[in-house]
Amino acid sequence: MNTAITLRTHLGVLADFKPRLTEAQRRIKNVFLANIDPDIQAHFLNRMHSPRIVGLDSMNYWIHNKRKGLIKLLKKVDIYVANDQESRDLSGEHNLIKAAAKLRSLGPKFVLIKKGEHGVLLYSDKFVFSLPAWPAKKVIDPTGAGDTFAGGFMGYLARAGKANETALKNAIAYGTIAASFNIEGFGLSRTSSLTLRDLELRKKKFRECISF
Amino acid sequence: MNTAITLRTHLGVLADFKPRLTEAQRRIKNVFLANIDPDIQAHFLNRMHSPRIVGLDSMNYWIHNKRKGLIKLLKKVDIYVANDQESRDLSGEHNLIKAAAKLRSLGPKFVLIKKGEHGVLLYSDKFVFSLPAWPAKKVIDPTGAGDTFAGGFMGYLARAGKANETALKNAIAYGTIAASFNIEGFGLSRTSSLTLRDLELRKKKFRECISF
Repeated sequence: MNTAITLRTHLGVLADFKPRLTEAQRRIKNVFLANIDPDIQAHFLNRMHSPRIVGLDSMNYWIHNKRKGLIKLLKKVDIYVANDQESRDLSGEHNLIKAAAKLRSLGPKFVLIKKGEHGVLLYSDKFVFSLPAWPAKKVIDPTGAGDTFAGGFMGYLARAGKANETALKNAIAYGTIAASFNIEGFGLSRTSSLTLRDLELRKKKFRECISF
Repeated sequence: MNTAITLRTHLGVLADFKPRLTEAQRRIKNVFLANIDPDIQAHFLNRMHSPRIVGLDSMNYWIHNKRKGLIKLLKKVDIYVANDQESRDLSGEHNLIKAAAKLRSLGPKFVLIKKGEHGVLLYSDKFVFSLPAWPAKKVIDPTGAGDTFAGGFMGYLARAGKANETALKNAIAYGTIAASFNIEGFGLSRTSSLTLRDLELRKKKFRECISF
């Protein structure tokens, strides 16, 4: 279940989506450009007043069909979030550390590579951070685990109000734990009933799982 | 480079190997039964007086051709060390946590699953421990990384003189770091010049890489 195979991508209503933003929304400080046409992501980002931190997700469809637009957009992004296959596709490097280094050179200060059941890698010029996944015995449906990770990650950064090394590492731990609940049920069945206390408890156990 | 494909196994001189042990050797307390015919491993283990800790490595060849002997031997072993594919083959479970739990039920108190570039998982009834690999940019030759891991792991346990939770976790960290040097050169080219100080320094960096 760790390898997603894309048989076909139907953009549907998102093909011509033009996000409209209120003045209040334009002042939001933490921005995550979820996976969509890089031109729409760029348009959206240009409408934002002065975001403090900008994360970006993409996917193979755009890497192959809108490569130039995506690469241009990466210069304006703080954190590029990609899975292992996307990292390899965009960088042309198989080794994930080399891939991350190459993606870093395209602009984003931080490159965050999601490796599914194998955890997460954060690459920056100053430090590299690596976490395994939560050792999950019960995997019902991994769909959305990457998005849940991104949600937990950005959510923590927004609450922390900063994105320094400590905050980023903790954000990754929260994202990892959020994703570990997502895979325990179909769709939102598990995450919809999740409380912050559930996250905190598992995060504590997770730290024990990886500390020596 | 993370997936080893075995095209053919020639046992060569090891097919009829009968290890001879001196009295002094029979009193050694830390025993690691490296990968060989389970019947030879069992014969060897029977000759040992009273080992404190027994580790065992095997491979797909024996899992397929000497399954019964291997399963019988596992009852006398403290730590079963296997890679991800071997764990899946012997347990019949794809999920590695489930695989580890099933292998645990065959006898060994601890099941240690090596996942190559994705790190290591230790499973026991009391705790689960998971470490990513050292984030290596330079991978020259992964041959022997698993054996180097086992060497660092058993070496630490022998020096620690005990195999409690803390010692096991640290042994895994040392094994991980030892293996991270092995892949940086062909054969023994990197490990043969390695000092304990090199290991200690990288282990310290590694801890920073995974702490939040």
